[in-house]
Amino acid sequence: MGQTVSKDNAKPVSLKQVKIKDDFWNYYINLVRDVVVPYQWDAINDRVEGAERSGAVSNFKIAAGLEKGDFYGFVFQDTDVAKWLEAVGYLLEMKRDEALEQVADEMIDIIGKAQQPDGYLNTFYTIKEPGNKWTNLTECHELYSAGHMIEAGVAYYKATGKRKLLDIVCRIADDIAVVFGDGPDQIAGYDGHQEIELALVKLYETTGNRKYLELSSYFIDKRGQQPSFFEAEADRRGRTTHWSNNKIHIDPEYFQAHLPVREQEAAVGHAVRVVYMLAGMADVARETGDETLIEACRRLWDNIASKQMYITGGIGSMAHGEAFSFDYDLPNDTVYSETCASIGLIFFAHRMLQLEPNSRYADVMERALFNTVIAGMSRDGRHFFYVNPLEVTPDVCDGKNKNYNHVKPVRQEWFGCACCPPNIARLLASLGEYLYSTKGNTIYSHLYIGGEMELALGDTKIKLNQQSSMPWEGTARYEVTLEQPASFALALRIPDWSSHASVLVNGEIYPIANQIVDGYARIDRHWTSGDVVELSLEMPIQRVRSHPLVKQNAGKVALQRGPLVYCVEEADNGPQLEKLHLPQQAKLEASYEENLIGGIQVIKAEGLKLQFEQWGSQLYRSNADADLEPASLTFIPYYAWANRGKGEMAVWVKERL
Amino acid sequence: MGQTVSKDNAKPVSLKQVKIKDDFWNYYINLVRDVVVPYQWDAINDRVEGAERSGAVSNFKIAAGLEKGDFYGFVFQDTDVAKWLEAVGYLLEMKRDEALEQVADEMIDIIGKAQQPDGYLNTFYTIKEPGNKWTNLTECHELYSAGHMIEAGVAYYKATGKRKLLDIVCRIADDIAVVFGDGPDQIAGYDGHQEIELALVKLYETTGNRKYLELSSYFIDKRGQQPSFFEAEADRRGRTTHWSNNKIHIDPEYFQAHLPVREQEAAVGHAVRVVYMLAGMADVARETGDETLIEACRRLWDNIASKQMYITGGIGSMAHGEAFSFDYDLPNDTVYSETCASIGLIFFAHRMLQLEPNSRYADVMERALFNTVIAGMSRDGRHFFYVNPLEVTPDVCDGKNKNYNHVKPVRQEWFGCACCPPNIARLLASLGEYLYSTKGNTIYSHLYIGGEMELALGDTKIKLNQQSSMPWEGTARYEVTLEQPASFALALRIPDWSSHASVLVNGEIYPIANQIVDGYARIDRHWTSGDVVELSLEMPIQRVRSHPLVKQNAGKVALQRGPLVYCVEEADNGPQLEKLHLPQQAKLEASYEENLIGGIQVIKAEGLKLQFEQWGSQLYRSNADADLEPASLTFIPYYAWANRGKGEMAVWVKERL
Repeated sequence: MGQTVSKDNAKPVSLKQVKIKDDFWNYYINLVRDVVVPYQWDAINDRVEGAERSGAVSNFKIAAGLEKGDFYGFVFQDTDVAKWLEAVGYLLEMKRDEALEQVADEMIDIIGKAQQPDGYLNTFYTIKEPGNKWTNLTECHELYSAGHMIEAGVAYYKATGKRKLLDIVCRIADDIAVVFGDGPDQIAGYDGHQEIELALVKLYETTGNRKYLELSSYFIDKRGQQPSFFEAEADRRGRTTHWSNNKIHIDPEYFQAHLPVREQEAAVGHAVRVVYMLAGMADVARETGDETLIEACRRLWDNIASKQMYITGGIGSMAHGEAFSFDYDLPNDTVYSETCASIGLIFFAHRMLQLEPNSRYADVMERALFNTVIAGMSRDGRHFFYVNPLEVTPDVCDGKNKNYNHVKPVRQEWFGCACCPPNIARLLASLGEYLYSTKGNTIYSHLYIGGEMELALGDTKIKLNQQSSMPWEGTARYEVTLEQPASFALALRIPDWSSHASVLVNGEIYPIANQIVDGYARIDRHWTSGDVVELSLEMPIQRVRSHPLVKQNAGKVALQRGPLVYCVEEADNGPQLEKLHLPQQAKLEASYEENLIGGIQVIKAEGLKLQFEQWGSQLYRSNADADLEPASLTFIPYYAWANRGKGEMAVWVKERL
Repeated sequence: MGQTVSKDNAKPVSLKQVKIKDDFWNYYINLVRDVVVPYQWDAINDRVEGAERSGAVSNFKIAAGLEKGDFYGFVFQDTDVAKWLEAVGYLLEMKRDEALEQVADEMIDIIGKAQQPDGYLNTFYTIKEPGNKWTNLTECHELYSAGHMIEAGVAYYKATGKRKLLDIVCRIADDIAVVFGDGPDQIAGYDGHQEIELALVKLYETTGNRKYLELSSYFIDKRGQQPSFFEAEADRRGRTTHWSNNKIHIDPEYFQAHLPVREQEAAVGHAVRVVYMLAGMADVARETGDETLIEACRRLWDNIASKQMYITGGIGSMAHGEAFSFDYDLPNDTVYSETCASIGLIFFAHRMLQLEPNSRYADVMERALFNTVIAGMSRDGRHFFYVNPLEVTPDVCDGKNKNYNHVKPVRQEWFGCACCPPNIARLLASLGEYLYSTKGNTIYSHLYIGGEMELALGDTKIKLNQQSSMPWEGTARYEVTLEQPASFALALRIPDWSSHASVLVNGEIYPIANQIVDGYARIDRHWTSGDVVELSLEMPIQRVRSHPLVKQNAGKVALQRGPLVYCVEEADNGPQLEKLHLPQQAKLEASYEENLIGGIQVIKAEGLKLQFEQWGSQLYRSNADADLEPASLTFIPYYAWANRGKGEMAVWVKERL
């Protein structure tokens, strides 16, 4: 068990080693524990009134022979149970909970009974189309569903030491290893929706069974090779499609199957699939040291982060295919920016940090986490965004222009396709894994989230107690506890949003100017128990502009303070937000409002507002312009939007010279 | 025959009375005669290589029993033949042409044979579903198709005096009058696509048979009444849909059937249907004097012209439903702006001018004609735009963002759904009808297009010979020829684009300041043969801005000179047009380039161009802006775009203070 290959990679710190104690984040983690996970359990058991039917648990009971009935839901409905179990695993890893564990154990028993003798586990095919398994990898997510169950099995085993689900998922993976491959009776293919790749690396790292790593590599290497596996599969099947009575039409870019992964130059197609694929590629690259794969990861990272990412860390510019579109195309209103895609981007960033610690990965991880991910959930933990727009006019989303049909102006209760809520739950429940990593004798601190962390560097046991005032203020304090003095480095990320950073060690200035490596301030010294490091990051309100080729933001500015991107809402600024202008010289002031949306730092500015009583009713006028009158503008953090009823919202505001 | 009701409406001047002699427009009219109409005849006979199959003529032959085969094309394929015949009618009304007339006569013979004994004429139902006629008015365009044939019958009769097609269409209309109505065995409904309404008024005005006017009124009055006719019809049919095997879902707004027409406050749904409906409503209102109908026409006119119309006279902001979206929503790139919709807007404007001469109608008519309509056709008369974008990036339309799939960066040869090319042909062939109208003792000159016009006001026969330098220069000269001196008024439109107008009568200043009524300068005097009126309109290059609520044009400016809206093209300005800025103080200079795209006035300006070598690769930067460097900008008339290969184009350009 455990890692069998030791390379010069940064190592993540596991959830067991970290105990988050943070004013900002404990709210969300407690919400996941107290509300989201119980609520989702009710939802997947079809016990939430008014929510869309799920069928996920009952599908397993039917497949297990414990209930009569028909399969209900999407072909990948099983993953709602898997993601719930994975989140439960993380919660239990943080804190055991007998009652919750018992519910999970019972679910696992049912899953065990639904597994077929050969290891196959998928309730859709078991109940509905037993003869058709593995015939439509393109559309039917069998390997994707298996991957989620594998992640659940690994998480639950790590948390509880119980092997039952781990054994189940090993049998799933063993079966897949028999079914897939280049042998004469094997399928030389891969899944339409990536996920199995990263799951198999987790399974390898947990079991030490190298077969799983090789299987993951196989899927990655096969992807996009010619002749097309998806086309050949479609031909074998008579070109049916799962979704209608029509014939299938395959757009290989949608599945990132247009080119071998190492030859892909830009992120294209379904955004979640892209980042899940990249996370799996980075995993395999980490374990195998394959430089060509690392290079592909870096190239696609750069494409996403420098050409296709919203300022909120959202990705996916178009609803059609829930997909990337093209470089610098970042519409704010017709955007997709699925919550799951930002979560996947965090998975990818987390893996890149293990490959090569560099603040550019952690900056994006933080951006996605503090903005899109927590915007995806309401403050009550019961309502969720699937799509995260940067500009909303409720009337318009409510049907006036069909290009906006996918955009919801308020969070929804539960989705028929419920990928996002459990994804938020499993990310937040495992947040501790994302804070630190180690490489050699260096401890990297990626995210400024308070709490205790224990680890060993070689024989040295180290405890770090981080206190953070972020995201509201720019300070973090680390207290080091050691059994005996030791030499190592503590590397603190200097975020891209900070204009100036300074460090005190035991109250004295520690000069970092020449100690910044790959975006981290290295404090490399001989430490004694009780040493205190104080990081101070200037956190000015920033006026952010987009690359000039982003048409949609031309002439517009967004405000950011620390990791938080801000927005204007109708609740504070009245309707027709397009009337607002922020002069370049306007003074911006931040103030904490304790009673607003759980307590937030608000930014106020003396702005301008179009008034066009003088303009008249003409649609076009020559040699005329609208008047501007003074108006007080209020910005709130983007994550907090849509918690005060239905109204307009915009991140980008017109700038005035 | 002839008009039987005489009211105080303005009367149009017919095509026979006008002989266009105009440098700018004769090119287009000759193109229609020499290229478009012959080409379209080949196209609907399936003789154009590389173009999509039409089937339109052969459908008639099959229905007539003259050929074997199956119906091909859309359910409204017959209208391609009808619109072609209508265009032929207008060409013949301008100038008889035996060869062309013989081809048309032969086509009309075939049509006569395809007509059923009861008068019913529709090749789709006759060939394919004889038992299902009149069962899916919602989707299947039977009355729409009938309407187009009626327009053809009227035009062909007026041109040639031949009654055969007129008799055919009277029998069609007579049959419709039997089938539709509130009687026990009648259908109390209306068509999903308006067109029959305006056609029946033409038939009434030509035949004097008031039944046709009443039938038109009936369709207009029924529309949008509750309970829904479309829903009831769907229920009777088992809720099938013509377009797939699914069940029908009816969006009443798409068909303007959400409210009775008199209660509709804004233009919604399919744009062509809206303006065809409004043209029919204005026709009925003109003939009946129904004030409530006139009021509805005015209200919807105002909504379109002051809240939902592109600067090019295009309408329809969204591809989904080829439809209006909502007030001030005018995206330039995902726009629909169908050529047919602008043609329909011209039909509507033309009718409003007959109801009440007011330059606001003629201004829009001119805007749509000089910009969208002639942009819809290439200079060679063989390539057409269906969608008329105001901003194009070819890469993007070619599939990178699916929201742009409907936008083509170059004109296409022939469409499977070929509504636009024949619509351009019939409008341009009948252009003479749109130039003048009379009301009481006033002759209104709406469009400055040169040529001769003869009419009688009471007993006074008047000849007007207009010479126009427009659209390139702002002068028009009228020479009046009379048999004897007479008193009447000549009312010359002062266009919305002119900053100053002056009039000379026989070389002497005629003060018009107090003579402007509803946007027309009235020259009310006693005239003698040989009198000459010279109109001089200042035609400065205008910097046009949009109403501040048009988000898409905020901070942008468009250039217009006379009726022509300008654009920048990649051919002149290089790629990435979003880099261009036009400073508010930039000097603008127009110059005529004889050899460019048939001879056009080009506008040049010293502008600015973003250069972002300094910006770096970051997608977002705080406290940074891109640099601008001087760049010479070239604007060409919008109608002339896409005649020099595939490239970017934009009407709205960023402005710089």
